[in-house]
Amino acid sequence: MSELRQDIATKRWVIVSKERAKRPHQFLKQVTVQEEPDPRDDCPFCEGNEAQTPPEVYALRNGSEPNQPGWKVRVVPNKFAALSLSTKWEGVQHPEIFTTISGYGAHEVIIETPQHNQTLATLPQEQVEGVLQVVLRRMRTLAQENRIAFVQVFRNHGAAAGTSLVHPHSQLIATPIVPTNIREEIEEARRFYDDRVTCVYCYLLEKELEAGERIVLQSERYVVLAPFASRFPFELMILPRSHSPSFVFDAKYEDIGPLADILRRTLLLLYRAANNPDYNAVLHTAPLRDSCMDYYHWHLEIVPRLTTPAGFELGSGIYITTAISEETAQYLREQARQLGIDKAGS
Amino acid sequence: MSELRQDIATKRWVIVSKERAKRPHQFLKQVTVQEEPDPRDDCPFCEGNEAQTPPEVYALRNGSEPNQPGWKVRVVPNKFAALSLSTKWEGVQHPEIFTTISGYGAHEVIIETPQHNQTLATLPQEQVEGVLQVVLRRMRTLAQENRIAFVQVFRNHGAAAGTSLVHPHSQLIATPIVPTNIREEIEEARRFYDDRVTCVYCYLLEKELEAGERIVLQSERYVVLAPFASRFPFELMILPRSHSPSFVFDAKYEDIGPLADILRRTLLLLYRAANNPDYNAVLHTAPLRDSCMDYYHWHLEIVPRLTTPAGFELGSGIYITTAISEETAQYLREQARQLGIDKAGS
Repeated sequence: MSELRQDIATKRWVIVSKERAKRPHQFLKQVTVQEEPDPRDDCPFCEGNEAQTPPEVYALRNGSEPNQPGWKVRVVPNKFAALSLSTKWEGVQHPEIFTTISGYGAHEVIIETPQHNQTLATLPQEQVEGVLQVVLRRMRTLAQENRIAFVQVFRNHGAAAGTSLVHPHSQLIATPIVPTNIREEIEEARRFYDDRVTCVYCYLLEKELEAGERIVLQSERYVVLAPFASRFPFELMILPRSHSPSFVFDAKYEDIGPLADILRRTLLLLYRAANNPDYNAVLHTAPLRDSCMDYYHWHLEIVPRLTTPAGFELGSGIYITTAISEETAQYLREQARQLGIDKAGS
Repeated sequence: MSELRQDIATKRWVIVSKERAKRPHQFLKQVTVQEEPDPRDDCPFCEGNEAQTPPEVYALRNGSEPNQPGWKVRVVPNKFAALSLSTKWEGVQHPEIFTTISGYGAHEVIIETPQHNQTLATLPQEQVEGVLQVVLRRMRTLAQENRIAFVQVFRNHGAAAGTSLVHPHSQLIATPIVPTNIREEIEEARRFYDDRVTCVYCYLLEKELEAGERIVLQSERYVVLAPFASRFPFELMILPRSHSPSFVFDAKYEDIGPLADILRRTLLLLYRAANNPDYNAVLHTAPLRDSCMDYYHWHLEIVPRLTTPAGFELGSGIYITTAISEETAQYLREQARQLGIDKAGS
């Protein structure tokens, strides 16, 4: 028998089709590992090819010159930037109908390592920490621009997740408006707070830890779970244990080490136990000028792209899934133990 | 320079990346036409293979027996139905958290023709009318079930749009809840009505007809346009000219002929002028028990799947597009003229 499940935070429904349910391993793609030379001459993100990107806006370097080799993490504007700080801000045009805003904002690429044949999952702890420190620093810098309302950080891994470049990288897009999805998520969180005077994510976390069956990994500061109303097989969510609306303003630099640890282990678990699936990872955080102090809670969503949403999902927003969150979590917990990555620092 | 555009009805934003803008024909995939035998022995939707599907719930037949050859359009439960009317309705379970509803509802396949090697775009007018009449009839029948709140009708065409079966078919899923996306669309339409005392879709249509530049096709009763804030290349919207919240209750059987005409010509235009792209088509209509009398307006969305939404789209709900609606519309208008399908009945 199938079942509809509702996500308490977003009010989103999914249909879990139990007749068609597959065991976790049945979702895995068969992988053929492609070995590529490292570095590659034609990869703009490889060390030595710095001239192939727009000039860097930030980098972790040990004293070397900008736009030269010798960096650990490098941030450059996207060569085909969707938005740019050099676009003139002209306010909202035609608020009556056919409303536009000029393409003011930023679109940056965070090159996560000079090494071509790696991915965030396989980088050492120290390198992942470097990436997260750089992301936080760029978000804080962009937050100082008056007209930037939101910075969306995301990672596309693999062709099915919409990336064409193999070299490990994340991206950020800073927008002059708060994205609709974030607005709606916050709206729901605010409604919950109005009713119950508690953060819905704090409440969810408490209940998930009590239930235990959807928990995948946990550490002193973070919890990874397979959401109750997962839309996709192997969908995961990383939440800070303590209430924290904004990653940009509430995360401290000393939180970055533990976050890098849980993120690295989560991605390594997917890489090893789920055959390196293509995925999107997305940071959800409070808007820059709307602190949502009491009712929002930043989190990271990781969405493997092993299935294709079709007309029903597109129209209704309800996802039909044949994956069962509790089985996914159990499978991943066992795999984490077997792989020896179930404890912080492992 | 890129531009943000907002859809007045949904408040959804897109980023039109004009530096990277492509001309309409640049989005087209190169097609290799695969000829398959017609009918095919292993296709459950081909005439003669009726025993390969669950027993039909409805069919257009000229006196032949149910589940035998001799039908024009045939409706069967999906073999792997996501929801079923035979599931016991048990109300909402655990409203506090981890909320579920048993899988009560319906999931049906509308087999649009006995012919395997066709698609809705290439069927004769009379056959498309038959399909739409059957869809309307099934929606009305399901609307009589007390616990059904919404019927989502959709069509997945091609692998990138999430279908595995080639034989022409649409689907419907009847749910005991109103889908989140529909709720949000209606919420926005209601807000607009509260402010302006007019239906936002009627207003949009008036302004689009005045502007003219995004209109693709029109007839006495319907208008096809490339939405101002299109998310996807070749995205199209079919709207009835006159205010009409519910396709289920407001459409009359005499509207079906003109709707079949505009739908067939729209799909044929995509088929011929855009190289038969994979697409999802989705009907947006008022919920069954919430008439939205003054402020909602049913419409059909057609979304070609020529691009892959990635992390930014998933997280923010903002789509980055390199297609410009005005150019798409101009290209399609010219092609319609050249193909001789720009007039009703052509």
